[in-house]
Amino acid sequence: MIESLNTNSPIYMGAERRLIEGSVCMFGVPFDATVSFRPGTRFGADAIRSVSDGLETYCPVLDRDLEDAPYCDLGNVEFTASPEEVGEGITGVVREIVEAGCRPLMLGGEHSLTPHAVRAVYETYPNLLLIQMDAHADLRDGYNGQVFSHASAMRRCLDFLPAAQLIQFGIRSGTREEFAEMRAARRLVGDALQLAEALKAHAHRPVYLTIDLDVFDPSLFPGTGTPEYGGIDWPEFMRVLDVLSSHKIVAADAVELAPQLDPTGCSSILASKVVRELLLTMR
Amino acid sequence: MIESLNTNSPIYMGAERRLIEGSVCMFGVPFDATVSFRPGTRFGADAIRSVSDGLETYCPVLDRDLEDAPYCDLGNVEFTASPEEVGEGITGVVREIVEAGCRPLMLGGEHSLTPHAVRAVYETYPNLLLIQMDAHADLRDGYNGQVFSHASAMRRCLDFLPAAQLIQFGIRSGTREEFAEMRAARRLVGDALQLAEALKAHAHRPVYLTIDLDVFDPSLFPGTGTPEYGGIDWPEFMRVLDVLSSHKIVAADAVELAPQLDPTGCSSILASKVVRELLLTMR
Amino acid sequence: MIESLNTNSPIYMGAERRLIEGSVCMFGVPFDATVSFRPGTRFGADAIRSVSDGLETYCPVLDRDLEDAPYCDLGNVEFTASPEEVGEGITGVVREIVEAGCRPLMLGGEHSLTPHAVRAVYETYPNLLLIQMDAHADLRDGYNGQVFSHASAMRRCLDFLPAAQLIQFGIRSGTREEFAEMRAARRLVGDALQLAEALKAHAHRPVYLTIDLDVFDPSLFPGTGTPEYGGIDWPEFMRVLDVLSSHKIVAADAVELAPQLDPTGCSSILASKVVRELLLTMR
Amino acid sequence: MIESLNTNSPIYMGAERRLIEGSVCMFGVPFDATVSFRPGTRFGADAIRSVSDGLETYCPVLDRDLEDAPYCDLGNVEFTASPEEVGEGITGVVREIVEAGCRPLMLGGEHSLTPHAVRAVYETYPNLLLIQMDAHADLRDGYNGQVFSHASAMRRCLDFLPAAQLIQFGIRSGTREEFAEMRAARRLVGDALQLAEALKAHAHRPVYLTIDLDVFDPSLFPGTGTPEYGGIDWPEFMRVLDVLSSHKIVAADAVELAPQLDPTGCSSILASKVVRELLLTMR
Amino acid sequence: MIESLNTNSPIYMGAERRLIEGSVCMFGVPFDATVSFRPGTRFGADAIRSVSDGLETYCPVLDRDLEDAPYCDLGNVEFTASPEEVGEGITGVVREIVEAGCRPLMLGGEHSLTPHAVRAVYETYPNLLLIQMDAHADLRDGYNGQVFSHASAMRRCLDFLPAAQLIQFGIRSGTREEFAEMRAARRLVGDALQLAEALKAHAHRPVYLTIDLDVFDPSLFPGTGTPEYGGIDWPEFMRVLDVLSSHKIVAADAVELAPQLDPTGCSSILASKVVRELLLTMR
Amino acid sequence: MIESLNTNSPIYMGAERRLIEGSVCMFGVPFDATVSFRPGTRFGADAIRSVSDGLETYCPVLDRDLEDAPYCDLGNVEFTASPEEVGEGITGVVREIVEAGCRPLMLGGEHSLTPHAVRAVYETYPNLLLIQMDAHADLRDGYNGQVFSHASAMRRCLDFLPAAQLIQFGIRSGTREEFAEMRAARRLVGDALQLAEALKAHAHRPVYLTIDLDVFDPSLFPGTGTPEYGGIDWPEFMRVLDVLSSHKIVAADAVELAPQLDPTGCSSILASKVVRELLLTMR
Repeated sequence: MIESLNTNSPIYMGAERRLIEGSVCMFGVPFDATVSFRPGTRFGADAIRSVSDGLETYCPVLDRDLEDAPYCDLGNVEFTASPEEVGEGITGVVREIVEAGCRPLMLGGEHSLTPHAVRAVYETYPNLLLIQMDAHADLRDGYNGQVFSHASAMRRCLDFLPAAQLIQFGIRSGTREEFAEMRAARRLVGDALQLAEALKAHAHRPVYLTIDLDVFDPSLFPGTGTPEYGGIDWPEFMRVLDVLSSHKIVAADAVELAPQLDPTGCSSILASKVVRELLLTMR
Repeated sequence: MIESLNTNSPIYMGAERRLIEGSVCMFGVPFDATVSFRPGTRFGADAIRSVSDGLETYCPVLDRDLEDAPYCDLGNVEFTASPEEVGEGITGVVREIVEAGCRPLMLGGEHSLTPHAVRAVYETYPNLLLIQMDAHADLRDGYNGQVFSHASAMRRCLDFLPAAQLIQFGIRSGTREEFAEMRAARRLVGDALQLAEALKAHAHRPVYLTIDLDVFDPSLFPGTGTPEYGGIDWPEFMRVLDVLSSHKIVAADAVELAPQLDPTGCSSILASKVVRELLLTMR
Repeated sequence: MIESLNTNSPIYMGAERRLIEGSVCMFGVPFDATVSFRPGTRFGADAIRSVSDGLETYCPVLDRDLEDAPYCDLGNVEFTASPEEVGEGITGVVREIVEAGCRPLMLGGEHSLTPHAVRAVYETYPNLLLIQMDAHADLRDGYNGQVFSHASAMRRCLDFLPAAQLIQFGIRSGTREEFAEMRAARRLVGDALQLAEALKAHAHRPVYLTIDLDVFDPSLFPGTGTPEYGGIDWPEFMRVLDVLSSHKIVAADAVELAPQLDPTGCSSILASKVVRELLLTMR
Repeated sequence: MIESLNTNSPIYMGAERRLIEGSVCMFGVPFDATVSFRPGTRFGADAIRSVSDGLETYCPVLDRDLEDAPYCDLGNVEFTASPEEVGEGITGVVREIVEAGCRPLMLGGEHSLTPHAVRAVYETYPNLLLIQMDAHADLRDGYNGQVFSHASAMRRCLDFLPAAQLIQFGIRSGTREEFAEMRAARRLVGDALQLAEALKAHAHRPVYLTIDLDVFDPSLFPGTGTPEYGGIDWPEFMRVLDVLSSHKIVAADAVELAPQLDPTGCSSILASKVVRELLLTMR
Repeated sequence: MIESLNTNSPIYMGAERRLIEGSVCMFGVPFDATVSFRPGTRFGADAIRSVSDGLETYCPVLDRDLEDAPYCDLGNVEFTASPEEVGEGITGVVREIVEAGCRPLMLGGEHSLTPHAVRAVYETYPNLLLIQMDAHADLRDGYNGQVFSHASAMRRCLDFLPAAQLIQFGIRSGTREEFAEMRAARRLVGDALQLAEALKAHAHRPVYLTIDLDVFDPSLFPGTGTPEYGGIDWPEFMRVLDVLSSHKIVAADAVELAPQLDPTGCSSILASKVVRELLLTMR
Repeated sequence: MIESLNTNSPIYMGAERRLIEGSVCMFGVPFDATVSFRPGTRFGADAIRSVSDGLETYCPVLDRDLEDAPYCDLGNVEFTASPEEVGEGITGVVREIVEAGCRPLMLGGEHSLTPHAVRAVYETYPNLLLIQMDAHADLRDGYNGQVFSHASAMRRCLDFLPAAQLIQFGIRSGTREEFAEMRAARRLVGDALQLAEALKAHAHRPVYLTIDLDVFDPSLFPGTGTPEYGGIDWPEFMRVLDVLSSHKIVAADAVELAPQLDPTGCSSILASKVVRELLLTMR
């Protein structure tokens, strides 16, 4: 599947365009479930790459440098495909990356893409812990008649993943039923401290970290489809990464950047910096 | 179906919120085939209404006033529905309007909605002439695996409408095959003069006028998903209406305004003025 | 007066367009003291309604759902009126709502509208406590020769309201004289904690809560005429509502959203969420 | 009055900040009849000046250079004044400029300012011909209860100016009554050719040229409060200046630029170029 | 030099990332003479590529399809270089392309880059005709102390190119001296008709076509640093290409797109369509 | 040199356009090392002035009023000059201001301007303490072949300033080498508390405070070339000023505002408020 990726996209700062052994392997999915040109998260992955040249390779908080860690950027899943084909494409690419001993890092696109990636990682890591950073619960059983909706991203994961292997971080929007479920399952955490506490029960699990970027407050990240006030700021994000540093993150994604909704370009810059920190943390 | 319309939307300047005998009946379809909030043509119909208060009721070119012609604004087809339900909703609403002796004026939303409206009008007017104003041919047999795509709007109409009953105006983008078909069928016209010539063969036909607003040049109308340079300007549009004044326009639509793509708001103002001119011309 | 409201505006998510017994009754005032079309807070009320569909009905912080509380959206005070007529219209509408045993929630428009609403509420509740959330003191005696200026909103209230019945929250801009007055009167509070302290002296008073949305920091809410850095964030706002939960809020307003100044649309989304929280809190 | 002008504003490219004998004398009026900070035409005059540095001093169409013609930029009428004071300020400044043998060029601000300037010029030139370039008739007798509304700019001039001394150019929006009046008076012209024809009856009259910049099509000039499609383009504007070159333009204004409505900045650039062409033509 | 190109950039629709025999060879130069990140034409080349997917491969006016003509996109000249190194890089890349029997198509970046490309083409084609489409004369001898300024683009070409081998199209801004020079040399043409006339004297010359995209009117193309009203529209551009169809265009460039200045994205779309038409015409 | 300043720029609220004894003396430098019109920090100084009218003269946190402190705004260093001339111009102007017993406050423009100002202040105050507030270390030895790059601002100061006389505040982006240097030198502080601690070693030194405005978080200040998340908020800035209140700030600058990158205008408003607080603190 990797070789069927579209390589016309820009490349993330310093990355190579081929699978490197032991690396974090980025790939993009320019998909937003719409047939129209221009609006939406379809442009998220490429925007993350385009602005990456403005970043330094070194992170003073993590005290690590991209130059020390192998990573690559394999291109994009083809855009002219049906939702089913996109889903299969994601699963196939992720499976190949994992089987090559690498760690996939998917750049969205919409959150509805995540279950397709989690499924492939779960095949290899059945004790996988899925950590969702998000403003929205995404536990609906479907939305507008669509089973694979962005409002159902976690529900689709729970179709195969045991509910005890899901932690939900930062959720601040949902139906009464969604919150009742999260609270009953005690899987909702609000900050890095609570996350650290919750992680004690999952000490040795490999982690899939899915970041719906709207977990950030709209003041930092207005460039997304459903901004929700009350989100986290940048220092809190770095604390989360610090908490996760004792875990092995075997796969991750960053989704829901809609770059054209933020004319200042800052939302893309935030997303691109999130990706850098992930590259530096996933090892 | 009319009574199932959502009436939470704003109302076009001066319109009533109930079906009036002998009137032009507006309704909106906030549909852009995407499950996400914010981007796209979903907001087109309401934007047209919101800025309508800035217009005068009188048009000096047509020398007519909205105060002389009955018109109403019935609300929006419900948004939380599948594409199939939206399609059926449109067909149902249009059928009721036509059966009540009125003339439907649909505000998009995407162009993929048009076949559903044309179908209902065609039931009553089998000799209907469909005039498409558009930048794109929309004759693909499907797009991204979707049969009812915005790139297939006219193809879906030709599923039931005789090809001789279609005129295509202003098309300047398409595949080689699409242009070959249009040229072979001699149904492509480039300006008001050519339209007048082409109409001679259809003297007494009732007209359905579908306006994909991207027929206008992007300099006038940047607020659309697939802007295409080389489009018409405002005086040319008025000449088209003048040419059509000797025909009976029994139904119309105006689609593909994506208001948030134009931060000046002018695209919405253009679309709203197009609607005023349609209200003044359809009688 | 209610029946003279303009009902062409959009309707807030889930609201009914008629006065419901025991409900919170929204109405809008598209007024910004300017005779020109387009710029300004004139579009605030309708923008709040337009984006409300993107919100959930449930608030996990308050653990309440809009489905449990009756509320309605009565439309807008007519725009084509003189400032005096607008003022009288507001007073009339608010009076009717209060006399019907309901609680008015006015959507601005400029802050200069508030005294007209407070006046009507004060007629029924002479022991009314007015709580102003704002970046600006609004205590000028007039501005640019206008008595009912947005810079005089509180001064005009103090024309009839005893000064001891006013609390000012979040003020961070004003003249030296305005601050001297606020400090002398000990009516200036800076955060939810201080507010709780100040409220002890007003235990059983009914509350009118006027929210000039520029009380929020410009990082969250750039879409306003006079943004002032140093404002509150979303969690602080929720703490204020928590402090107020032991008081009866009999009336409220949310003013000074100028939606077109924020091309990301987030300012409107914040304002719309503020309104949801008010609907859930006012009871 | 000139010495009471506020000189904190930027200065138009190459101009001097003092009245020069025989010059064209610019001054600005940052007034948009609103008490709020930021939105509107209040910022028009300064935006015209700010971008003027990007222009050349030479115009190849007119084959003239600013270096050959004396001009100055005297500053702005004070903003913190009531509408009445602003009106008196304009009249006073214009009177002083005219009495000094110079030609005033007022930069708006709203069109409601024009009658105050015309009045002062008319005192010296009772045979003055007023030529209005505009999208809107501006012949209402008042608007929203305001006598000096931007919708009444020409009506207020006709309070003292004989109707035969008014020519209206480019008007494409108004009420049925306004158009009936203009047509009856035969004072409406649509292009430079018709203007040349109409001017024959006024061969030796001095001219006041008032340019509501919305006479330009919104594709060129979206940065204005009430854009109206069907306007003129740049070559047509230059043809108008050519037609006027045989007349003596003793005063002019350029109004209704609202720079913040056009994030590309091009509307300000157009307005600034209009001013350059006026400086080169007024002599 | 080609192999030193940076290949991290996106790829123009359908192009290959390697030199193809007999093809048109695109390459980009993300250079705007500034050391700061973000603003300016630095992002032009990549923006042209990013939006190219929204275009059809077929042009109905030219009746040609990209699928019939070989073309490639070789990447970008490295950004982290001094102006001198960038200039040498351009000259080197263009020389290699020309020596391989291909035709270079450079995507800017600023117009100051053009002399470096023309120089290399001129080595092989000493009878080269340089046709400049531009709003500005670019004949200054330097600007702000910089010899290779964007205001000197043509002056630097005339350092080696005989003046008789330059045609300047669409120039509408410059100093009195620049216009005097152009008029004296009779090398200034205003439209496609005049161009056709001027070309008669150069029947068999190979052509280098340099397109400063600000030759288009700002209504079509606001996304550039120095927009100048009075420019050409799209149909006129196609007429120019038609006039040039009898000449062999051996090299071309398209420069001065500053994509972030136009939030609608339309300027990038225009530039991308210009590139498509060039690809279809250069053969 | 002061008399060679360009006085066409707007004037900061309430300032005088002449050197006043004992005052803080503002001047602007519209320089961003690029020869193109429009983008960049070139417009920063004038934007700061333009929006200053929207501020109050009184600061309730500092409890001081501009009316009590003399300050002036001398105009801008000429724009049409080479980088070397600009540098010399800055040094000359600052030297004159300091020699007149006043305190210079430079408005950028890019950060590369700072060394030219520091140099002149250092001549008079050899024990000067330089405090840099910034997101970036600016310690590169050059960038893109430019010695005076914005990425080298502090390195150029260290060419003459003893390293022990530099404190760097808020830096969160740089190379591994830059951070190694800062840490080794113990000159990096992260918040106001650490700054207070660090200042103990410099009790009686006069201070030059250089504020690269990107020290603020992009949520507050998106209008800059290289936004970097993780920055300070407004209350933290006021805490820094409070810490500095026991020191004598003899000179300051505020740089790197690129106003056109933030269409809400809030970045300019923040910068203008920073300047007000500086005016109130420098004494």
